[in-house]
Amino acid sequence: MLYAPKEEIEGRIARLKTLMEKASLDGAFFLYKVDYYYFTGTMQDAFLFVPLKGKPILFVRREINRARKESPLDEVIPVKVFNDIKPYIKGIRRCGFELDVIPYNLIMKFMGILGNIEFVDISPIIKCLRKTKTPFEISLMEKAASIAKKVYKKIPDVLKEGMTEIELGGLLESFAKPLGHEGILRVRSLNYEAYSWHILSGETGSIVSQSDSPMGGLGLSPAFPVGASMKKIRKGEPILIDYGVCYHGYQADQTRMFAIGHMPDIFVKAYEVCRDVHYKVLDKALTGMTCSALFEYSKELAKKAGFKDAYLGYGPYQVKFLAHGIGLELNEIPFIATGMDYPIEEGMVFAIEPKMVFPKIGASGIENTVVIEKGKWRVLTDINEEIVIL
Amino acid sequence: MLYAPKEEIEGRIARLKTLMEKASLDGAFFLYKVDYYYFTGTMQDAFLFVPLKGKPILFVRREINRARKESPLDEVIPVKVFNDIKPYIKGIRRCGFELDVIPYNLIMKFMGILGNIEFVDISPIIKCLRKTKTPFEISLMEKAASIAKKVYKKIPDVLKEGMTEIELGGLLESFAKPLGHEGILRVRSLNYEAYSWHILSGETGSIVSQSDSPMGGLGLSPAFPVGASMKKIRKGEPILIDYGVCYHGYQADQTRMFAIGHMPDIFVKAYEVCRDVHYKVLDKALTGMTCSALFEYSKELAKKAGFKDAYLGYGPYQVKFLAHGIGLELNEIPFIATGMDYPIEEGMVFAIEPKMVFPKIGASGIENTVVIEKGKWRVLTDINEEIVIL
Repeated sequence: MLYAPKEEIEGRIARLKTLMEKASLDGAFFLYKVDYYYFTGTMQDAFLFVPLKGKPILFVRREINRARKESPLDEVIPVKVFNDIKPYIKGIRRCGFELDVIPYNLIMKFMGILGNIEFVDISPIIKCLRKTKTPFEISLMEKAASIAKKVYKKIPDVLKEGMTEIELGGLLESFAKPLGHEGILRVRSLNYEAYSWHILSGETGSIVSQSDSPMGGLGLSPAFPVGASMKKIRKGEPILIDYGVCYHGYQADQTRMFAIGHMPDIFVKAYEVCRDVHYKVLDKALTGMTCSALFEYSKELAKKAGFKDAYLGYGPYQVKFLAHGIGLELNEIPFIATGMDYPIEEGMVFAIEPKMVFPKIGASGIENTVVIEKGKWRVLTDINEEIVIL
Repeated sequence: MLYAPKEEIEGRIARLKTLMEKASLDGAFFLYKVDYYYFTGTMQDAFLFVPLKGKPILFVRREINRARKESPLDEVIPVKVFNDIKPYIKGIRRCGFELDVIPYNLIMKFMGILGNIEFVDISPIIKCLRKTKTPFEISLMEKAASIAKKVYKKIPDVLKEGMTEIELGGLLESFAKPLGHEGILRVRSLNYEAYSWHILSGETGSIVSQSDSPMGGLGLSPAFPVGASMKKIRKGEPILIDYGVCYHGYQADQTRMFAIGHMPDIFVKAYEVCRDVHYKVLDKALTGMTCSALFEYSKELAKKAGFKDAYLGYGPYQVKFLAHGIGLELNEIPFIATGMDYPIEEGMVFAIEPKMVFPKIGASGIENTVVIEKGKWRVLTDINEEIVIL
C-alpha cells in the first residue's frame, strides 16, 4: 500500500501555513476526513489541528497504530474526548474550521470547548490549496486514468444488446475494482453523490435529474435517481459511458460513446462537435483567458456548429459549466463556467466534458481528465476517442 | 419504478406533526436528502418545509417534473433562491432543523433569511420516527434481503483460491447491481462511509480500522481503509462476507462465513457460539429488557462459551454494540449496545451481528437483518446459515 511521502505532507502543511498567515489565522482544525487526509495521509477516525507556529497534531480516535503507519506527521496522538485537546490550543485567538461541510452541532461543540475564540471558515483556503496538484497527486490520478483505460478496453467484449444499463455498470465495477478502483467518487456537498456507473443509453441520456449535470439518467429508484438504470440497451442508440474511477482517493473522469449496430447521425455529428470544442478550448486554456471567457468561447463554438440548443443540456436544463476541477473530490477548482473569473493555471487538473443533449432521444459527448503541466495541457485519460460501434 | 404511496407519506407527515407539537415546534425544515426522501418520496435537489398547521411544501431546485412524479405531496413547487421561501414561513417562531448533519454555513444562511426564529435540532424527532418501520418500508427491506440471498447463492460458484478480496467484491457488485442493488450504503455521519464489499479473509479479519466495528479490514488504500483489499484469498482461512445491499434506499445487512478446503476449528467454534448468541438474544428481545441489558446478556453468553476476549473485537478494540438499527441509513435506532436504555419495539428492524475476532489470524461470525412484527422477530435475510466449505 502506498503512503504519502513525508516531504509531500510537509509541503502541503507549509503552503497551508502561508495562507493561514495571510488570513491572520493562528490555528486551524480539520474535521472532515477528505481534508485531513490531504494534510496527513490518513483517513482514520481523527481530526487535525494545525497551529500557525509549531507542529500539526493529529488527534486519533481510532485506530492509532494505523494512523501512525499511514501518516508521516510527527505528532499523531490518541484522543478520547474533545476536551482532551484543550492543552494543545492555548493562545489561539482566530481559528479556521471547515464551516462549509461540518455540521452545525459539531461546530457548536468545538465553540463550547474552545471558548472565546474567533471562528473563521477555512474552506476557501482548502479549495485554493487543492486547486493545483503536486506531481505525487498527479501520479495517483494517472493511475486512476490507467485503470479507466483498462476498463474501457473491455467494454466491447461485454456490451450486448438487451442487457440493462446497470448490468453493464456492475460488470465495469467487477473489472475496475480488482485494479484498485475504490468504488465511491467523493463530492464536497451535503446531498450530491456521484456514482461510477453513469451509463446512459438512448432516451435515458436525455433524462434530467437532481444533479447539476447536462444529463442525469434514470437511475435505479427515487432514492438513487442518477446514472445507470434498468433500461435495456438497444441497437442503434447512443450509449454514453461516463465511468469515473477512484485510486487512493484520487479520481479520473472520462466519457466515451458506444453503439450497437449503428449510431444515428445526429449523435455522431454532436460527438464530433464536442470533440472539436474540447480541443479548441484546451488550446485556448493557457492564453490567460478567464474560465468564464473560456466557457463563453465554447458556447460560441457549439453555436457556430449548429448545436446551440443541445449544448450542455436543453431548454431550462442547460448547465453553466464545461469543466470541473477533480482530485480527491469531483467538484474542486477550476470550473470552466459562468462567473469564474480566474484563469487556468499550471498544476490544475480538470475534467472537461462538452456534451449535447436531445430531448427524448439521448445524449452524446466526450470527457477527459486533463492536467496542466510545463505550460501545456496533457490528457490523463488517453483512451481511444473514436466512437465504438459494435 | 416504485414510488411511495400517498397514504404512506401522509402517515409519516402526520406522525412527524404529532412529535413536532409535543416539542412545541410550529415548523420544520428538512435539507438533508435522506430525511426529505423519507417525508416526500423524492431525492431530487430540494428541501422540505413542514408547518405544524397546513400542508408540507417541497421546494425543488432541480428537477421539478421528476419531483412531482415521485412525490405524492400536493405542494411541490420550484424555487430558485432561498429568499423565495419567505412568504411561506410567516408566523413561524420555533423551527426544527437537522442540526446534526447540516453544515454550519447552511444553517447560518437560513438563520439570516428567517430572522428572529428559534432554531431547534429536529434530528431526535427524525430518529424517533425512523426507529420503527412501516409495512411498506419492510417490503423494501425484504426486497433488499432477497437480492442479498441471490448474491450469496452465487458465491460458491465464483470464490476461488488466489483471487483477491476486492476481485470477489467486484464480482458480487456485478451480481447485485442488475437485481437492483444501489451500490452505496448511506450512514448518518460526516466521516463514516460503508462499503458493500466488506470481505475479509484470514488476517484481514483481525485488522482494525477507523470504523466502530469489531473488524475493519485492510481496504484498498489509506483513503478507503475499510473492507475488501488486494490480499489474496487462501485455502484454510476464514472468509467473512458482509455484503450489505440497498434497494430503493433501504438496506439489508448480513454476514456469512466461507472457506476453501477447510476452516480451522477455532473459527468454526466461534461461529457456532455467535449463532447461539444471535438466536438467544433474539429470543429475549421481546421480554421488555433494555437494549443495554440485552447487550450485557450477550456478553455473558460469549463469556460462558469461553470467548470473552474475542467477542466483538479484542483488547482495546472491542466494540460496545451487538446490533444496529437499519433502514435508509446504517446507523438508525435501535442499538443493542451499552447505554441504550430502551427496549426493542414492534416495527423495529436491526442488524444483529455477533462476531469474534482473533488477533493476527482472523474473524468469524454471523449477521442478520431482523424485523419485529406481530410480537415476534423474523429474519429478513433468510440465507443459508451453515458455514460454506468449498
